[in-house]
Formats: sequence, structure tokens, C-alpha cells
Amino acid sequence: MAEIMNIGVDLGGTTIKMALIDDAGSILDKWAIATNTIDNGSHIASDISLSIEKKLAQYHLGQSEVRGIGMGAPGFLDMETGFVYKAVNIGWENYPLKDELERSMGVPVILENDANIAALGEMWLGAGKGAKNLICVTLGTGVGGGIICNGDILHGVSGMAGEIGHMTVVTRDGAPCNCGKRGCLETVSSATGIRRLALEALDYNDSESILRDIFEEKGDITAEDVFNCARKKDPLSSAVADKAANYLGYALGAISIVTNPEKIVIGGGVSHAGSVLLNPLTEYFKKYSLPRIFDACSIVTAKLSNDAGVIGGAWLAKTKLKQVHPA
Amino acid sequence: MAEIMNIGVDLGGTTIKMALIDDAGSILDKWAIATNTIDNGSHIASDISLSIEKKLAQYHLGQSEVRGIGMGAPGFLDMETGFVYKAVNIGWENYPLKDELERSMGVPVILENDANIAALGEMWLGAGKGAKNLICVTLGTGVGGGIICNGDILHGVSGMAGEIGHMTVVTRDGAPCNCGKRGCLETVSSATGIRRLALEALDYNDSESILRDIFEEKGDITAEDVFNCARKKDPLSSAVADKAANYLGYALGAISIVTNPEKIVIGGGVSHAGSVLLNPLTEYFKKYSLPRIFDACSIVTAKLSNDAGVIGGAWLAKTKLKQVHPA
Repeated sequence: MAEIMNIGVDLGGTTIKMALIDDAGSILDKWAIATNTIDNGSHIASDISLSIEKKLAQYHLGQSEVRGIGMGAPGFLDMETGFVYKAVNIGWENYPLKDELERSMGVPVILENDANIAALGEMWLGAGKGAKNLICVTLGTGVGGGIICNGDILHGVSGMAGEIGHMTVVTRDGAPCNCGKRGCLETVSSATGIRRLALEALDYNDSESILRDIFEEKGDITAEDVFNCARKKDPLSSAVADKAANYLGYALGAISIVTNPEKIVIGGGVSHAGSVLLNPLTEYFKKYSLPRIFDACSIVTAKLSNDAGVIGGAWLAKTKLKQVHPA
Repeated sequence: MAEIMNIGVDLGGTTIKMALIDDAGSILDKWAIATNTIDNGSHIASDISLSIEKKLAQYHLGQSEVRGIGMGAPGFLDMETGFVYKAVNIGWENYPLKDELERSMGVPVILENDANIAALGEMWLGAGKGAKNLICVTLGTGVGGGIICNGDILHGVSGMAGEIGHMTVVTRDGAPCNCGKRGCLETVSSATGIRRLALEALDYNDSESILRDIFEEKGDITAEDVFNCARKKDPLSSAVADKAANYLGYALGAISIVTNPEKIVIGGGVSHAGSVLLNPLTEYFKKYSLPRIFDACSIVTAKLSNDAGVIGGAWLAKTKLKQVHPA
């Protein structure tokens, strides 16, 4: 008898990633299609169904060999009903995504928000493998989080658990955040936040710095520039990297006192900085957590990159839809 | 057929509280005995068994009518094995409490740490009734916490989850904490911390204050004095109460962004301050959380007082020992 397949879907504003993954975590295939946002995203559910059906036909897989679809989507969702209240990048408002997809595909569907689904992927096959208590942090344009306790994502009472980018870490004169508050983690430890801290530092003092040379040449700098220069021991860049690490270590210390994780997985573009971020981060994490928490926890970088979402989606299908299609 | 009874036990350094509670939450009886700490606490397990057996006989209850014992104990425990690594107040070191108690009583036993068991009690029959996502905070000599997600206590990988008294809330020039760090929540929002803040304020300025009058009369002040004077609009006391509320609101904002609770239950001596603490606390909590988190959450004071522990213990027996004695 053929393996039962789990389908992972990771919906983004520009592409929809998909994968067929068996219960052991072997990826049979992965592929992507463009996200068609015209007509308020009303073609997306059938685009996904058609693409999956074609792929199943290619592998001679029937519906009875598919457990279901685990899908990550952006925006505000009701995870239980699979209802999307609002997904600005897609154009959905009050859209019954789960129902639409189940109708067009004929297999059960389970939804999760996109940051959480990547965390589940890292737990199953990535940097968090083997751990049941994890904090996953994505440092990109913003700061996203997925908190896993006892092997499952924390949602909280209104699906907002793990929105750690909006923990207040600068209590005095914090920079304004997109959320309307000031001094959020996102304003200092995201790629955008690190760039802002560096521009402030360049403005504030006129010391020589190879980061300043880059700024004068390109007219701008990125978080990547900051870490590259810090790696070359540029004092101004090192100070900025240290500041970003301090705030992140502070937030992770607080989160760890709440959940006592076995692993902290750092992903997103900023995580490519490597040791120039992770070394000071580990020291600050130690400072702001407790010995018995620090000793039980390791900070690691994410492994699955762009595949984390589809892998997490397949894990959700495998784990949560078990009762629907007994293998 | 008689109701199946759950036995809740709450072990403290001076008394052991016990109760017989049925599955519906009706308390048949509650009582206490002294904690006998001689011979390194080696008599405690048999003291508990004897006391319970006497009580069961009084109600003509046989062992088949008892599901088991849920027990809260202080110190460092392994919740799964019921092994106590160290409980300083009791005298235990590497003591197999669960095994000892099961041997002498002949019914299954489940252990939990004392802060968590009180949180479970408030969830079942107290201020958290009906909520499955809770933060319970005990403001006493220290600051204790119990974090409940999806109806269960978070333990984390090494049993340290919820040690929220040691979240860093004062990042500059924080006062030293018993844990060895500085600026922990416990240094500013416990009864001891509030007294310290008030003594500092009295020392720092020489404005007239009815709190100063109390200090000069008694030679000392308590957190209760601070809140009593704040209730009478004493500016110095109000400023201290506001500061303690600010730090607590800051920590609760951070914890809520991690777990998105439906209720925050404030217990312990300091919670008797009432609105003079809860009103500013609610405002600061709003400031440091997010609208969708704040709107879904209410801050309430604990209801069960000293009974929270035995009620939580009985809930543990009822819920976790179900499979052992099917009713």
C-alpha cells in the first residue's frame, strides 16, 4: 500500500508554496505557483486545488492516499473554523478559506497563521527537531514569533499569542512602531529596526566607520551591511549589533521565563548574521533569564529557510487530521 | 453509588491543608494538620495518610470511592515522577514523595508545585472559572506565577515556566534580587518590593506624607500602609503604588503577548489593595499589551484565598488520574 501523503501549503502575497510530504517527513515534491490576487483573491482556492490535483495525477496518487491539507495563511484567521477575517495582501475579507478549499479539493483542510506554521516546520524537521518546547523568532522586515509548548502552538484566547514583535523593550523614548505603540521589539531587532538604529548612530556621532563609507557611497545601508561591518570589528557597527542583540536577548529572556523552552530558533534574513549576532545574544539571554532556564536551552539558527512553511503545513495535516482519514 | 472523591493536599512549611472534593467541585470537608519537619520531613507522608484515612473513615468512604491525591509541594520537583530534588522549608532532599505517599495510602498521587496548584484551583472554582487561558500572579513576600494555556499548566522543559517574579523589569540600576540578578519583578511589585520602593521614596524626598507619619510612629511601613495611604490620596504613596503597578503592568503586558490569556488573576496579600492597585495596573497593562490582547482579557482578583491549593490539587486528581480509577 502506498504511503499516505500530507499536503503543505504556504500562502504568501506573491507566491503559493506547496509540497507533498509523507508521515516520515520525506518530501516527495515541492513546487510553487504565483498568487493571483485579482478579484479579491477569489481564484486562489481553485488555483491551489488545480495545481495539487495535477501534481497528484503526475504521481498517480488518488484522494484516498491524501490525508489532507495543512495551510499557512497571512492575516487574521480563526484557526478553528478556518475563516479569514482579513488578509490585506491577498484581498480577503470575511472569506471562508477552509470551506472553499475543502469543497474544491474534497479533502480536509486545517489552517494556521504563517509565522506559526514555519515554527512547526522547524520543530518537525528543522533546527528544533526533537524539542517539544520551542520559541521560534523570525527577524525580517518585522519580528514574528511562534511559541510551541508541549509540541503544540500557543494560540491564546483570540489567536494573538506569540506576537512577540510587539513586546515593549524600550520603555523610554522608544521609536514609533507600525502597531501604534512605541519601543516594540520590532523597532530595534528587525532588519528595518537595525537599519534605523545604525542611521541614528551615524547621525549621532561623526567617528570614522566603514559603515559610514558604505552609507556615503550607496546613500543607504541595510542590516546586512551593519553585521558585515561588525564582523570586520567596525566599532560603530559592533555597537549597533550589540544593541539589537541586547533588546532581543531581553525579550527572549522574558519569554523563556514564561515558557522555559528547550530551543530558541532564530530565522529570517537577520539570522544570516551568524555569530556576530548570536554570540552577544546568548550573553544577554543569559543575563535576562535564570540559570536553570538558560542551562536547559540552546539558541540555534533556523534550518529550513523557505521550506519551513510547507513542512509545518504537512505536519499539521499529519497530526491534526489523523482522525479524519485513518491511514 | 457514592460520588467519587478527589483529595487535594497543599503542603506548606507550617501547615498541610487537605480537602475532599467531588467531581462537581463540592467540598465535602477541608482540614489542616501541622507540618512535622523533624527527621528531615520523613514523617510527613505517613502523617498525611493517617489524617486522610481518619477522615475517610469518618465519612464511611472506602478506597474504591477515592480517585487519588493531587498535591502541591514547595521546592524543586519533577512533576512526572513526583520526585522532590530539594524542598528547603521541609527538609527534603532527593525524596521520592509520590512513591512514599502511594505506598502508605494505596491510591495514585500526582504532584505539582505550589504556585501552579493554586492557579489550577482558581481556574476550576475561583476567579478564573470558565477560562482555559490564564495568568495567575501571587503578590506576597515574593512574586509567584502560574501560566495556564489550553486548560493546563505550562511547565517547560525543566519545570521552570512561570517563574515570572524573576522577569527583569528594571533594566538600569535595579535593586538586587534573592535570585542573584537585579531589577526582577519581585524587587518592585511584591509586598517586600513595594515596602522597599516606599522607604526609598521617603528617603529621597522630604515632602509631608501621612505615610511618613506612620513610618515615624511605627519605625517601619508595610505595602498595606502604602496602599491605605494611596487610597487617602497621599501623593508619595500614590506615586509608589503607581510605580509598582507600572512594573507589574509591564510584565503582564509581555506575558500576555506571549500567551494571549482570557483572564489575569491577581492573588496574594498585595491583591487586597483592590482598585488602588488594579486601576493603574489595568491602564499600564493596556499600554504594554496590544488592543486585540487587551480587549480579550480581564484582570480580576483571586477568590479562593487559602483554599486555592487544595482545590487545585483535587482538580489535578480528577483530571489527571481519570484513567487510573475509572468512575
